Amino acid sequence: MPLISPSRRLRRTPFSEGVEAAGVKAYTVYNHKLLPTVFRSVEEDYHHLKSAVQVWDVAVERQVELRGPDAARLMQMLTPRDLRGMLPGRCFYVPIVDETGGMLNDPVAVKLAEDRWWISIADSDLLYWVKGIANGYRLDVLVDEPDVSPLAIQGPKADDLAARVFGEGVRDVRFFRFGMFEFQGRQLVVARSGYSKQGGFEVYVEGADIAMPLWNALMEAGADLDVHAGCPNGIERVEGGLLSYGNDMNDDNTPHECGLGRFCDTQTAIGCMGRDALLRVAKEGPIQQIRAIEVAGGPLPLCDRAWPLMAKGKRVGQVTSAAFSPDHKTNVAIGMVRMTHWDEGTELYLETQEGRRDALVHENFWT
Amino acid sequence: MPLISPSRRLRRTPFSEGVEAAGVKAYTVYNHKLLPTVFRSVEEDYHHLKSAVQVWDVAVERQVELRGPDAARLMQMLTPRDLRGMLPGRCFYVPIVDETGGMLNDPVAVKLAEDRWWISIADSDLLYWVKGIANGYRLDVLVDEPDVSPLAIQGPKADDLAARVFGEGVRDVRFFRFGMFEFQGRQLVVARSGYSKQGGFEVYVEGADIAMPLWNALMEAGADLDVHAGCPNGIERVEGGLLSYGNDMNDDNTPHECGLGRFCDTQTAIGCMGRDALLRVAKEGPIQQIRAIEVAGGPLPLCDRAWPLMAKGKRVGQVTSAAFSPDHKTNVAIGMVRMTHWDEGTELYLETQEGRRDALVHENFWT
Repeated sequence: MPLISPSRRLRRTPFSEGVEAAGVKAYTVYNHKLLPTVFRSVEEDYHHLKSAVQVWDVAVERQVELRGPDAARLMQMLTPRDLRGMLPGRCFYVPIVDETGGMLNDPVAVKLAEDRWWISIADSDLLYWVKGIANGYRLDVLVDEPDVSPLAIQGPKADDLAARVFGEGVRDVRFFRFGMFEFQGRQLVVARSGYSKQGGFEVYVEGADIAMPLWNALMEAGADLDVHAGCPNGIERVEGGLLSYGNDMNDDNTPHECGLGRFCDTQTAIGCMGRDALLRVAKEGPIQQIRAIEVAGGPLPLCDRAWPLMAKGKRVGQVTSAAFSPDHKTNVAIGMVRMTHWDEGTELYLETQEGRRDALVHENFWT
Repeated sequence: MPLISPSRRLRRTPFSEGVEAAGVKAYTVYNHKLLPTVFRSVEEDYHHLKSAVQVWDVAVERQVELRGPDAARLMQMLTPRDLRGMLPGRCFYVPIVDETGGMLNDPVAVKLAEDRWWISIADSDLLYWVKGIANGYRLDVLVDEPDVSPLAIQGPKADDLAARVFGEGVRDVRFFRFGMFEFQGRQLVVARSGYSKQGGFEVYVEGADIAMPLWNALMEAGADLDVHAGCPNGIERVEGGLLSYGNDMNDDNTPHECGLGRFCDTQTAIGCMGRDALLRVAKEGPIQQIRAIEVAGGPLPLCDRAWPLMAKGKRVGQVTSAAFSPDHKTNVAIGMVRMTHWDEGTELYLETQEGRRDALVHENFWT
């Protein structure tokens, strides 16, 4: 692995001190900020995530805050998902598309109140799009990046750990809902969500000053639960089919191609960007779609580029994330496959930078 | 230095093969793409850049292309710099601001024709802002990211090297102008520009297929000029006062604070975003501004965060980039200083993660 040159532009987070003390070994850059990728080893972190509980610095999930009388109207303009039934206290996964239906981001929208929303973003400067739209349509809304740094608690023992710090009530928070919980006199949004399939919470830490106190409180409270600093895990997320914007899809792709058609209510999400294009896509169906791909053979090279998926010398798709799964004892991958070859059990091959591998299409991921 | 985890999201460039073969030692991430930062060592690269010639993979300078009848109107909406006198064949450094005058990017605009522009961007997804504005104002313009990857030729022997590949005519290209030059039957934009003070060119390589052929042609043609793969140099750019968006300024800052007031023609750049706010700033003047800062003592820690600049216990600014200059035999830095303390010769001190250092304010950079 190459080295990364530190600079202010690759912003540290309010948890960086804790991350460094825990022995972080590598980073990626996400929303111009450092995101840890390895603590002990990717494999060791994987087993630990699936058996204990981890605290993750996911401050890279920047928030775009919408505030004001037109906040709800703007939020609905941004996504084809129908938000009319969404109550405060809910989190919705919302594809964000441009006027052609190309994905600009796949964030979680957090509805704090009718006139106040957070959009918890994936890796692109969605703030710029939202500001441009708000400006161009002259909406009565303030759009900015607040001092909010999410911290995730993930793993099978996440409920136990969260309850020790936020109280037993946190156990009652349902999936993709949030409640307000107190820490050191501050009310924090604690949502049942997170970028793993192991369950847990995301705490929206408002105010950098309480970031390390919360980190330390979780580490102390969880000592006997084997709590450890962790991060989104490159094996676990591929096994579970959790997509990564910029890796598995980008603005070339529609939500339907990403298997997110169920979040596109283009008939009812009145006023949303990309409506015309997505109505067309919904009618015809996508011509390629995300699939689970099983890759034959031993350890793979690092998937640092799209690997062409081939059938009889013709390109029929690509793999964009891949890893060896210790639990499933096979190479797991995420790919985009054309409809001619996307059925369960289709045999393909792929071309990595280190040669050809046989590949098998699955309709479902491994968890 | 920590490690960087490769993934498709940190996009490789069409020159990555050449960069790797040349022994790149470290990267940063810029516009979701890999930007080399070290080949031999930062110091060795520095001396070589100032004495010979380097070829840089600056494909991270992504282009936002504007095409169509409203392209020129949109371009003028984006920047407070008056573009009326700008002819095709010119490059203009253009601050891009939001409605409050906060800087969103500091790119170079390349005018290919009245109805076709490239904006060669610094590290933020300016495409999103431009698409949002074009959409909100219903402009008749296509906005996208074309397959263009800039390659820079920098250093005192840049003219000699460029002439061998593009012909003697390239020597006549004036500063911030461009000409069309042929390579392997393709017409390429070759501009006299680049992110160093050593002079040279940026080649806007249109079509990834000719990227490595051009890289190799330059390396072969320059063998006796001691050509080497290089990259923007962390010492040279600070010495010369070349600002870096995200390091030395961001959307908290106006162009005037960054010393870019001369590029703000808010009286005549009719229709530009941020006009009202910048007229106010122009009238009152900024209350803080970029300054050259000399830092006392031996080698500095890595400047991976803003270092507070202090006077008598009070924060009066911050340093955001710093390095030891072998040629000037002192630590050079870029800082933002309040007007009360920005005069030449003002003595301050700064707080790094490894302790306090004396600092001296200069009005001019070192070259």
